[in-house]
Amino acid sequence: MDLDRFFSPRAIVVVGANETPYGGSFFLRNLKDAGYEGGVYPVNPRLAGKTLVGWRVYGSLDDVPGEVDLAIVAVPARATPTVAAELAKRGVPFVHVFSSGFSEAGRADLEEDLRRATVDNGARLVGPNCLGGYNPRARTAFSTGLSTVSGDVGVVSQSGGLAVRLALNGPSRGFHFSKIASVGNQADLDLLDFLAYFGEDHETRIVAAYVENVKRDGDKLVPLLKAITTRKPVVIWKAGFSEGGKQAVASHTGGLAGDLRLWRAMARQTGAILVEGFQSLVETIQALKYLPLPETRGVAVLTAGGGMSVELTDACERNGLAVPRVSEEGQEALGEFVPDVNTNLKNPLDLGAAGLDPTTQARAIRVLASEPAISSFVVVKDPERFGQHARSFGVPDYEDRLVEEVAAAKPPDKPVVFCNVLLTETEQALVARARFEAKLLRRGIVSIDDADAAARCLRRLWEYGRYLSSTRA
Amino acid sequence: MDLDRFFSPRAIVVVGANETPYGGSFFLRNLKDAGYEGGVYPVNPRLAGKTLVGWRVYGSLDDVPGEVDLAIVAVPARATPTVAAELAKRGVPFVHVFSSGFSEAGRADLEEDLRRATVDNGARLVGPNCLGGYNPRARTAFSTGLSTVSGDVGVVSQSGGLAVRLALNGPSRGFHFSKIASVGNQADLDLLDFLAYFGEDHETRIVAAYVENVKRDGDKLVPLLKAITTRKPVVIWKAGFSEGGKQAVASHTGGLAGDLRLWRAMARQTGAILVEGFQSLVETIQALKYLPLPETRGVAVLTAGGGMSVELTDACERNGLAVPRVSEEGQEALGEFVPDVNTNLKNPLDLGAAGLDPTTQARAIRVLASEPAISSFVVVKDPERFGQHARSFGVPDYEDRLVEEVAAAKPPDKPVVFCNVLLTETEQALVARARFEAKLLRRGIVSIDDADAAARCLRRLWEYGRYLSSTRA
Repeated sequence: MDLDRFFSPRAIVVVGANETPYGGSFFLRNLKDAGYEGGVYPVNPRLAGKTLVGWRVYGSLDDVPGEVDLAIVAVPARATPTVAAELAKRGVPFVHVFSSGFSEAGRADLEEDLRRATVDNGARLVGPNCLGGYNPRARTAFSTGLSTVSGDVGVVSQSGGLAVRLALNGPSRGFHFSKIASVGNQADLDLLDFLAYFGEDHETRIVAAYVENVKRDGDKLVPLLKAITTRKPVVIWKAGFSEGGKQAVASHTGGLAGDLRLWRAMARQTGAILVEGFQSLVETIQALKYLPLPETRGVAVLTAGGGMSVELTDACERNGLAVPRVSEEGQEALGEFVPDVNTNLKNPLDLGAAGLDPTTQARAIRVLASEPAISSFVVVKDPERFGQHARSFGVPDYEDRLVEEVAAAKPPDKPVVFCNVLLTETEQALVARARFEAKLLRRGIVSIDDADAAARCLRRLWEYGRYLSSTRA
Repeated sequence: MDLDRFFSPRAIVVVGANETPYGGSFFLRNLKDAGYEGGVYPVNPRLAGKTLVGWRVYGSLDDVPGEVDLAIVAVPARATPTVAAELAKRGVPFVHVFSSGFSEAGRADLEEDLRRATVDNGARLVGPNCLGGYNPRARTAFSTGLSTVSGDVGVVSQSGGLAVRLALNGPSRGFHFSKIASVGNQADLDLLDFLAYFGEDHETRIVAAYVENVKRDGDKLVPLLKAITTRKPVVIWKAGFSEGGKQAVASHTGGLAGDLRLWRAMARQTGAILVEGFQSLVETIQALKYLPLPETRGVAVLTAGGGMSVELTDACERNGLAVPRVSEEGQEALGEFVPDVNTNLKNPLDLGAAGLDPTTQARAIRVLASEPAISSFVVVKDPERFGQHARSFGVPDYEDRLVEEVAAAKPPDKPVVFCNVLLTETEQALVARARFEAKLLRRGIVSIDDADAAARCLRRLWEYGRYLSSTRA
């Protein structure tokens, strides 16, 4: 399915825009806000000749000039089949229906009418009950306030709300989007169509999907994912496993959710990376963008006092990772610059007060980088205490020094994740942590502040790497 | 074991203080910082007659005047048995040994010497390898910067770092401490002694423990916990389950960690509440302090758009809770003030845009409070959007209105937890959320911003309530 004209339309018709800020006018504002430069043709007989959000309103579809790649439809559900048929006959290849009131509201019949009216007349349908497309390069958008920076993450989502959250959240975590599609009820174009598109799309290097249910062609999902994951990672947040979740899904996008075990088996078989919530979705995308894949399950846990080593070690092993003992040579090498009072050089490593010194921290990472059993690092820090450390070590630019030294020391083939644990969640501490993490990210170091989440994320990277190796064997 | 003289000493001897800020002088600074008003007697022959941190130094223990309740010992490990024996003979009832270098460093023999030297001469030993006691009412402290506000949470911890983190973190989450004990290697006084004390202590209404291992008398733990939990909740963070975690424990406090299944069975049998990390420990303490115990596993999930309802419902059911359908009468009552466009009144509830109005939000909670199947509430909010909502609803004090209306509407017997999900983690958004959550907490509403963590916390409250009912049946 070539979705280029859907994602990069040269002209857009908007049916159902009026003086209120909702419905069609919502999309007019989104396009205006994004700086869309193609043709925009609101259609509304009652407002013909007037302007809406700066665009001239047309009285009927017949009046709209030239070729149109995409129609956005926001009229009452019962009117959509007629509108869609008209658009399709007019030669519009993609009809995106924003309106709700279809299978998610018990009107599967109306949804089928809409699908037929579109498809039988030669067009393809996105939705209904969805927000459609966002493409920063083409300056299309499904909300105001979205980034116009083009990136390499392609997303298909059955939830419009989630699509917007992700679009807003990504840039604050250092990743941007090639395209996002909110696909709603998937009456025609569905998850598989968009996954296949992102698999081929040269702009997209990481594929993510929010899935409530697979509408059809479930047997094609496994070969499709297998074909994509060898070239780019696919992260899937499958929601709606629980009974209540299934009901929520039914009411949300009119589908039936699948079985968790099936999805887990499918992920193992295809190399797709399953996540189970928004946080883990964005953490995993961020990790895939910034971090290399670890070759083994071995993690070095680096602390400098503070009693976090047991918690992190438990979290790693609970999540299928290992915290292997550092070799005798490694311990000896560390012992050359880490004192042996209140320290532990075996792993989990407690470097004691010396570990707070940026240079010592970086040296420890360099030593450990050559341990074959260790493929990733979790470094525990407390940004609230940086002022104090700066005074102790006579290093006024403590934070910048720490970031620079660790960035310079980190091995290119082993991921480093910071786990920044605050003693108190004061406003000041929260801001200090956010600033520190932004600095780390600019140097390619990811922060995940919950021990369990950090371990889960590293496990996902390791599993994906292992899958890739198995396909090459 | 009467630990009153340990926790509320009238006079303290500090052995091993010198001109450096470490060791004994660290405790002198802690006591000064806390405003301790009892007698403080540093002992150091070399510095006799001088002052340390404002206190006169004594040349020997014989010179120290009057009765002494507690000794803090920070001399090299090998010297501790002699010092402890001397203190015990002098009539000091509690000897807290800060020094490390005992079983955690492979010197179980030295630890046994220390224990005997203390106990055989009639005193009791706290530690070695620990920070000892913190009692805000008595103005004792094991760190600087601790709150001097006395509270109702009593803690025993095998990690000094964790004890300090908890002491610093609690007040920022709205709870304070009756007493905290860092017990280290537990050569003599151990977890059970402190649990028994907190069970009886009238200041302590919530008991928390960070446990790496049970040193002895494992068979007494079950009856002891059973006796406490019917009167006050006991939250236990058991760490060191994993292989690496066990090694970390061995090196941390010289103990051997137990089996997770045993601990789970023990928790079920005794009503103790097991948690598995720092975040869940503080969230659970906060919840026990502020929230009633839910009577059933039924949760109402309240959203206002945004696609969070499926995630929260999945999280609830994954954690053994239910999201039961609202009764027909309940749906009708909600339908009177919630429009039926893009809403879902069944549960998970999506109140749509109307749910952003504080009054509508509060009315919905009032209606749902009388649903017998619903015993708790999770309300999803996005504090980043409050400014926008304030404009939409013409309510300039939107945030305060929301807090007040929800606080007034919340039923006294059903917990309400807010899950505040940010679209972007900008500094501004983080600060806005922290402020909103502080306002909520002042009105007895707890925030847990991760869906899974919120669900786990409610499950723990429900399980504890169920245990209490079973003991009364």
